[in-house]
Amino acid sequence: MLAVGVVGGTGYTGAELLRLLVTHPQVNLKYVTSRSESGRKVADLFPNLRGFTDVCFTEPAASTLAECDVVFFATPNGTAMKMVPELIENGVRVIDLAADFRLQDAAVWKQWYGMDHACTDVLAEAVYGLPEINRAAIQTARVVANPGCYPTATTLGFLPLIENALIDDQHLIADVKSGVSGAGRGASVATLQAESSENFKPYAVDGHRHLPEIRQTLAGVASHEVGLTFVPHLVPMIRGIETTLYATQSGPIVGDLHQLYVDRYADEPFVDVLPEGIMPETRSVKGANTCRISVFRPQGGDTIVVSSVIDNLVKGAAGQAIQNMNIMFEFEETLGLNQVALLP
Amino acid sequence: MLAVGVVGGTGYTGAELLRLLVTHPQVNLKYVTSRSESGRKVADLFPNLRGFTDVCFTEPAASTLAECDVVFFATPNGTAMKMVPELIENGVRVIDLAADFRLQDAAVWKQWYGMDHACTDVLAEAVYGLPEINRAAIQTARVVANPGCYPTATTLGFLPLIENALIDDQHLIADVKSGVSGAGRGASVATLQAESSENFKPYAVDGHRHLPEIRQTLAGVASHEVGLTFVPHLVPMIRGIETTLYATQSGPIVGDLHQLYVDRYADEPFVDVLPEGIMPETRSVKGANTCRISVFRPQGGDTIVVSSVIDNLVKGAAGQAIQNMNIMFEFEETLGLNQVALLP
Amino acid sequence: MLAVGVVGGTGYTGAELLRLLVTHPQVNLKYVTSRSESGRKVADLFPNLRGFTDVCFTEPAASTLAECDVVFFATPNGTAMKMVPELIENGVRVIDLAADFRLQDAAVWKQWYGMDHACTDVLAEAVYGLPEINRAAIQTARVVANPGCYPTATTLGFLPLIENALIDDQHLIADVKSGVSGAGRGASVATLQAESSENFKPYAVDGHRHLPEIRQTLAGVASHEVGLTFVPHLVPMIRGIETTLYATQSGPIVGDLHQLYVDRYADEPFVDVLPEGIMPETRSVKGANTCRISVFRPQGGDTIVVSSVIDNLVKGAAGQAIQNMNIMFEFEETLGLNQVALLP
Amino acid sequence: MLAVGVVGGTGYTGAELLRLLVTHPQVNLKYVTSRSESGRKVADLFPNLRGFTDVCFTEPAASTLAECDVVFFATPNGTAMKMVPELIENGVRVIDLAADFRLQDAAVWKQWYGMDHACTDVLAEAVYGLPEINRAAIQTARVVANPGCYPTATTLGFLPLIENALIDDQHLIADVKSGVSGAGRGASVATLQAESSENFKPYAVDGHRHLPEIRQTLAGVASHEVGLTFVPHLVPMIRGIETTLYATQSGPIVGDLHQLYVDRYADEPFVDVLPEGIMPETRSVKGANTCRISVFRPQGGDTIVVSSVIDNLVKGAAGQAIQNMNIMFEFEETLGLNQVALLP
Repeated sequence: MLAVGVVGGTGYTGAELLRLLVTHPQVNLKYVTSRSESGRKVADLFPNLRGFTDVCFTEPAASTLAECDVVFFATPNGTAMKMVPELIENGVRVIDLAADFRLQDAAVWKQWYGMDHACTDVLAEAVYGLPEINRAAIQTARVVANPGCYPTATTLGFLPLIENALIDDQHLIADVKSGVSGAGRGASVATLQAESSENFKPYAVDGHRHLPEIRQTLAGVASHEVGLTFVPHLVPMIRGIETTLYATQSGPIVGDLHQLYVDRYADEPFVDVLPEGIMPETRSVKGANTCRISVFRPQGGDTIVVSSVIDNLVKGAAGQAIQNMNIMFEFEETLGLNQVALLP
Repeated sequence: MLAVGVVGGTGYTGAELLRLLVTHPQVNLKYVTSRSESGRKVADLFPNLRGFTDVCFTEPAASTLAECDVVFFATPNGTAMKMVPELIENGVRVIDLAADFRLQDAAVWKQWYGMDHACTDVLAEAVYGLPEINRAAIQTARVVANPGCYPTATTLGFLPLIENALIDDQHLIADVKSGVSGAGRGASVATLQAESSENFKPYAVDGHRHLPEIRQTLAGVASHEVGLTFVPHLVPMIRGIETTLYATQSGPIVGDLHQLYVDRYADEPFVDVLPEGIMPETRSVKGANTCRISVFRPQGGDTIVVSSVIDNLVKGAAGQAIQNMNIMFEFEETLGLNQVALLP
Repeated sequence: MLAVGVVGGTGYTGAELLRLLVTHPQVNLKYVTSRSESGRKVADLFPNLRGFTDVCFTEPAASTLAECDVVFFATPNGTAMKMVPELIENGVRVIDLAADFRLQDAAVWKQWYGMDHACTDVLAEAVYGLPEINRAAIQTARVVANPGCYPTATTLGFLPLIENALIDDQHLIADVKSGVSGAGRGASVATLQAESSENFKPYAVDGHRHLPEIRQTLAGVASHEVGLTFVPHLVPMIRGIETTLYATQSGPIVGDLHQLYVDRYADEPFVDVLPEGIMPETRSVKGANTCRISVFRPQGGDTIVVSSVIDNLVKGAAGQAIQNMNIMFEFEETLGLNQVALLP
Repeated sequence: MLAVGVVGGTGYTGAELLRLLVTHPQVNLKYVTSRSESGRKVADLFPNLRGFTDVCFTEPAASTLAECDVVFFATPNGTAMKMVPELIENGVRVIDLAADFRLQDAAVWKQWYGMDHACTDVLAEAVYGLPEINRAAIQTARVVANPGCYPTATTLGFLPLIENALIDDQHLIADVKSGVSGAGRGASVATLQAESSENFKPYAVDGHRHLPEIRQTLAGVASHEVGLTFVPHLVPMIRGIETTLYATQSGPIVGDLHQLYVDRYADEPFVDVLPEGIMPETRSVKGANTCRISVFRPQGGDTIVVSSVIDNLVKGAAGQAIQNMNIMFEFEETLGLNQVALLP
């Protein structure tokens, strides 16, 4: 049994981590920290956990967290980087669900997140936790940067095309859509139900923080910079991300696009390429750690379209974090993650 | 491992049964029948099941279903009663999620369901599958009548008050509310999203079929007829039932109402009496087999109010059916049912 | 043309007032005040108003508001009572959409709203603005206390029964349900879409501030105190209130309940008694100033059930306020209020 | 006053037409036809119309419809083309909200709609009813083909770019999203609330019937064929369309894109170009006949992005139809169409 700590357990990624951890057969949930809720039972805040855990929120403290084998950070950006150095010195492995270790270039990080990076040396060793491209490195990592939700869906969607250099990668388009849980559990007018339900809109068109993250990953795959237009939209539902990706093929396609995707993801337990002609829908992954993908060429033209869906809180956050934990500690990769999506 | 069959696997209770059965450690899902979808993969209709089962829908046939240890009926009312006699003769045990075996009086059944009962002898031996009152009988039953969704929430809410004869049971009021999945997966105008979302209304005020079912159960507990006003409402959400129950206390209350409920349900794995002053909410049981309950007396008056919530598809249908299966086959009662509710 | 001011135009009742005022043919919208948004165009905050008004938010000031014929307060409770005395001294008539002038007894007001009343003399002359019982007094009032949303729907529902002394008015039950816009436009976790959508729950069971308001009005009609159990619920939709009211008839009913309601409201432009057997639904009044009502006796018993629906922001707030304005200034009562509800 | 008939008044476009017609000051609503509902009061089917009209549904008959000045068709595709020739012979002017007269090439029509066109001569004279490009022709038309919902939003979004030849019009991308009312009021599993709410998905990726319609209009503007990838998505809300349009600029942009849009639509009463940096949202047009548009270049690159929103039932159907009627009969173009969008 692993001793597990969760720092920042009051947001939605924290809540989702807790949901998955309390039934994970190899997890002993030891600490859940929250400054604001310290002393309160976790199950009082999240009544779905009643009967599953008696843990109370505690103040975050490196000394107690050091008793853990692995600590998850489900904190605002900029928190983990202050605590991680001490933890890893004490032999604790860390999975950060925030953005602190996602961008390898500290200058780019500062540009998008508005603060200096607090531990660039740790940043240098952190591994980007997308198992489908980094499984081996994750296995031995001390610090895993759990990918963002949009980057997970977008990267998995573009990956086979970029790996095979089949498209004009200077004019990639990602029209992405997310349910409102992506905006977090903080009090805010914009995501009040009376504001965001029965409404659809683009947002963050000036530049979303997931843009440099996706560009970094795709550039790593392509071995050169890529050009990406990235337009997020807010969908009036709680969970789910759908990305519709557009690219122009750069030469004649050799072979079968659908088969290319099937082959690429044949051994991936959490990527499901749908049968040809079937489109993914977000509800098919609600509560599950799966990414479902379709690829097609409308009217047989030279524009390739990919649609991918994930649950932003699972494969886009907490589920992927546990997948990474399973890899790091050499459990079966699917352990504790075999939930069937809730449909309807 | 049990050999399990599901008759009528294309509706929401069927889909939910499948979701729970495919990960149940003692279940071998052998047959799922559907006349309309025969030959099609179950996971093609319900993409959340992709990767969990390769079963295809087949035509319902007593000969093949006879190979099963237990068969669930998730069919329209009036279907099970035609097939059940042959199945039990062949040693198959049956759990009917429809209403065929819920009302013990065949005349009352005919009045509310508009057809003659096809097997009154089987009806006589059928056990009403509410474990909280019938656990022992369920254990040995050949045929279990799985309770309706409203009756489950309403009965569990009134139970401690009726058992202790604390209220005027001739003027019970149940103001009940259900999400739209309760209306089923059949094509219909009334539950199109454009009709039922952003809307709230009472319905079936002339008399809902769950009224005689609740009256029968409460009369059994009280040992005399009870009077019940039962007004259902449609809530613009997918899953969940909340019942608000009103009763006038019939004498001075001795002791503590809250403690009465806590004690009554102390040993029930799927009934959770909330701390005093905390109200239940449907999302706290979304996807889970739990009923959460609160009891209180507004302004300290003589009107007692109870609020109970369930997921209509789980504790109100498929989950309770599997709970009954676990009891019938002497598995741990919670086996395969330890899902944490999906929140948010 | 009336010169009209709105104090506190940034909440939902304010937004709805503005929607109705900008197309009212007798209204010159002169001032809309907001401390937080002062200087900003109203149509920048509420883009639906683009093209309808160029008014900017200004700081609230009695001196400028004194230029108005009528001032609406759509402010938090406790704000209007501080400004109203000066305004009415200057000849301005006031319609308060908050609760400052709703409870005639200042001690009761303090008990429920937690502060001393600032102008009990004005309170004494304020008229409760429910036209269906107070039309004549409204016409000449200097200060109108616009009713709460639940009180409007509940009072109109019980009114014919109480006026005719047909029921046991010591055990009235009101099971009431509201869409989330009733909780206001303030940032809050509880009404984030990810919290309140796909959820249903009772709330404020300790005692809701609308309870004493309803009791006061019904007591006025009955000429004695009434007993009321009042349980509010939150519905996952934006607009709409449905009340289901339960009462036991106190003697044999003389005549026809449905006809009683039809006759009572025959001359009321904004109360619509539905044909017998037809239940109201909230969407039938979305955006409209109408209250639709049904009355029935389930299974012909002695429990009478009434269901009434309103749009909480229109007949439950802004629309009723304008109806009151029309009465006060002797316009046609329906002027500017003939919107057809938006369906679907 | 115009004598007005509506053929097919039981769907959502029909319901919306009725909502707008019953308060239009120049309209006498004479006939509303429906085979299935003949004899029933229109306000019994659509309770929001109670108090606004006493018209009953009647069987459709050319003889009685011939008494009208104008007849709207809100029928399934293929119905209007059979009745229109007789009506226009009798001097009735026609506005068809279905697709019968949208595609000028009868062969293309047959290819996409699967039937021969029944009156190609009338087709030849029909005017595509997008006032922003065809106002003069609409004024004198006997038959107006009211545009589809996606085509309205997409065309208005691309128009200034195409008119000024600023983009590569062979690789246009339209990622479009619609609320579920776009799927109509027919009973169907796919748009049950339990299926389509809390879900987001692309659909009709093989080719949507609005694709040739948009291509035809844009080709007319460009004076040559255009290339368009068109991917529709279903949004879990009732009303609203948002289109996100992507195009690569074909040369250096001269001047200011935002100003180009402002100037193009300066005199259009129902097109609102938002201030720079402000994105449209569908709720800002809910129930209103307005199209709101933004244009921007993410990260200052050579990809131009346009976002436009409409209410699919208003500017995308019934509202635009009444706008066309106003033009045809020389009323003020905004007459009866000055509703403020319902927000929240």
